[in-house]
Amino acid sequence: MQTDLVSPLLAGNRRALARALSQVEDGGSEARALLAALYPHTGRAHVIGVTGAPGTGKSTLVNALAKAYRAAGQTVGIIAVDPTSPFSGGALLGDRVRMRDLAGDPGIFIRSMATRGSLGGLARATADVILVLDAAGFDRILVETVGVGQAEVEIASAAHTTIVVEAPGLGDEVQAIKAGVLEIADLFAVNKADREGADHTVMALQMMQGLAPASAGHHGPRSASGHPEPGAQSDGSWLPPIVKTVATRGEGAEKLRDWIEAHRAHLQATNKLIRRETARAAAALDHILRDALLTALLARLPDGALSVTVEAIARREVDPYTAAARLLANSA
Amino acid sequence: MQTDLVSPLLAGNRRALARALSQVEDGGSEARALLAALYPHTGRAHVIGVTGAPGTGKSTLVNALAKAYRAAGQTVGIIAVDPTSPFSGGALLGDRVRMRDLAGDPGIFIRSMATRGSLGGLARATADVILVLDAAGFDRILVETVGVGQAEVEIASAAHTTIVVEAPGLGDEVQAIKAGVLEIADLFAVNKADREGADHTVMALQMMQGLAPASAGHHGPRSASGHPEPGAQSDGSWLPPIVKTVATRGEGAEKLRDWIEAHRAHLQATNKLIRRETARAAAALDHILRDALLTALLARLPDGALSVTVEAIARREVDPYTAAARLLANSA
Repeated sequence: MQTDLVSPLLAGNRRALARALSQVEDGGSEARALLAALYPHTGRAHVIGVTGAPGTGKSTLVNALAKAYRAAGQTVGIIAVDPTSPFSGGALLGDRVRMRDLAGDPGIFIRSMATRGSLGGLARATADVILVLDAAGFDRILVETVGVGQAEVEIASAAHTTIVVEAPGLGDEVQAIKAGVLEIADLFAVNKADREGADHTVMALQMMQGLAPASAGHHGPRSASGHPEPGAQSDGSWLPPIVKTVATRGEGAEKLRDWIEAHRAHLQATNKLIRRETARAAAALDHILRDALLTALLARLPDGALSVTVEAIARREVDPYTAAARLLANSA
Repeated sequence: MQTDLVSPLLAGNRRALARALSQVEDGGSEARALLAALYPHTGRAHVIGVTGAPGTGKSTLVNALAKAYRAAGQTVGIIAVDPTSPFSGGALLGDRVRMRDLAGDPGIFIRSMATRGSLGGLARATADVILVLDAAGFDRILVETVGVGQAEVEIASAAHTTIVVEAPGLGDEVQAIKAGVLEIADLFAVNKADREGADHTVMALQMMQGLAPASAGHHGPRSASGHPEPGAQSDGSWLPPIVKTVATRGEGAEKLRDWIEAHRAHLQATNKLIRRETARAAAALDHILRDALLTALLARLPDGALSVTVEAIARREVDPYTAAARLLANSA
């Protein structure tokens, strides 16, 4: 059945795409067969992760960026992932707000995802949805996540280019701009840049990059102070550019788009793209093997063996490590 | 070797505790043997999860709460988990700040944890550290996590009582107070309650609980409006109390402590405690089995088979599902 979807999906049929996404989100053997059939047709889309604290105007920026890509003639898939809404229907509401803004453009496709079950499950489901949109021919896929925690780092690991969105005046700067962010950001967007404190936020980011002394006043052009220009460096490294945006008016969106494309060119010019693909492949294989192995083990266990074991652990009659070893020995 | 640690640890020796925690964090077969030996001596501590956005004053509130418990003669273990700092040494710095405040009291033990590897790994490492502190005889264990995302939901699943900390004036209220929070909170603390907007935050929480109309002005006593009192209800459910605190001055900490104890009594009076223990046992067993099964599979594979497969997936020559099925078939 799922193979019926492959040809129309690859040909750009939207109903086939919607059905394929539902099937993938439902999981199971049909979903796996579909993903397997689509996989050879993937690897063409550039995946852009957009992350940042609530209140930075991230969603509006994603919409502005999608429009900038459409203006350049490219199709855009948007995946809105909200790991902070594990239970509610907030994702659906977000969809409707977005739809109103971007509706009617067949070159844009939006999908919202909330957590079902574990975070690992969400990261993997996001990777699967990216794969389907990639196969469906979208040129650029924007993956929006809330926050800059470990959850988002795991989801962002599916992206080729990661944008961290900051905004002025979001409480304590030291807490808002975490040191860890430096390690995942390929690009910084300082959104709401028409507000007071935007230059301060830019400078705080530059300080973290080691480009501005803590005692500096207003920041001038970096080249004037002898610092390197952002972007690709002569030694093959990448210095994350900092782009000021006012997403509500679309300001800075084209500049952001151009920096994303520059980063994409940088990844292609170096061997970083294949390294990222290899890391993604290893993570996908790891997840799939763990699931398959546990499923096979549970099928081998006698009825009720698992619940008896769980109850014994809960009553502290046996520790989980010893219990696991016994289950494995009995099923070998 | 690890069994040398068990007796002194159970007897309250702090050097044995520190060595046991290091061993557990290093992982491996010695750690598993140690945890297995300690497991029968656990299940006595009450585990309290404290979560909330950055800027709510969560750490200060945890310190105030620890002091309130010490004033009641109980020993306290504190575990500070920061999933948003996967890379930096921020946890260590936090330790030092805390130490200055709580130092010298042998009835308090503090351990900070930052992410190493995956989030799932952090959740499990946190559960292991809780187990060690429980065996070491701490009466109450406070687990502090940053944020209210799925990451924190997973870590909080190890807690008996979960406190969600809010504070007035933290940007957009609708975003700050997520609907999902209602599902994990056993208690709300509105910290920095001396600031403007604290009553507004309390009312927003009450609205989420369905206890205040959206159009209401300043909130009065709830019983006056015919709403149920917070805490244990006659139908066996629990209505999360909302406690105002000013952690920097210790205000509200004793009230918070008393509500935690009331929640503990509620869990014991109903069958909820054993249900939570069973869910924890199932999650622990699931994690351990997946790790053990994957480790065993990798040991059975010929040298290099895994990396050859990963590279083939990265080059899109094979999809990860088919590749996984082949590895499993070849190793059977």
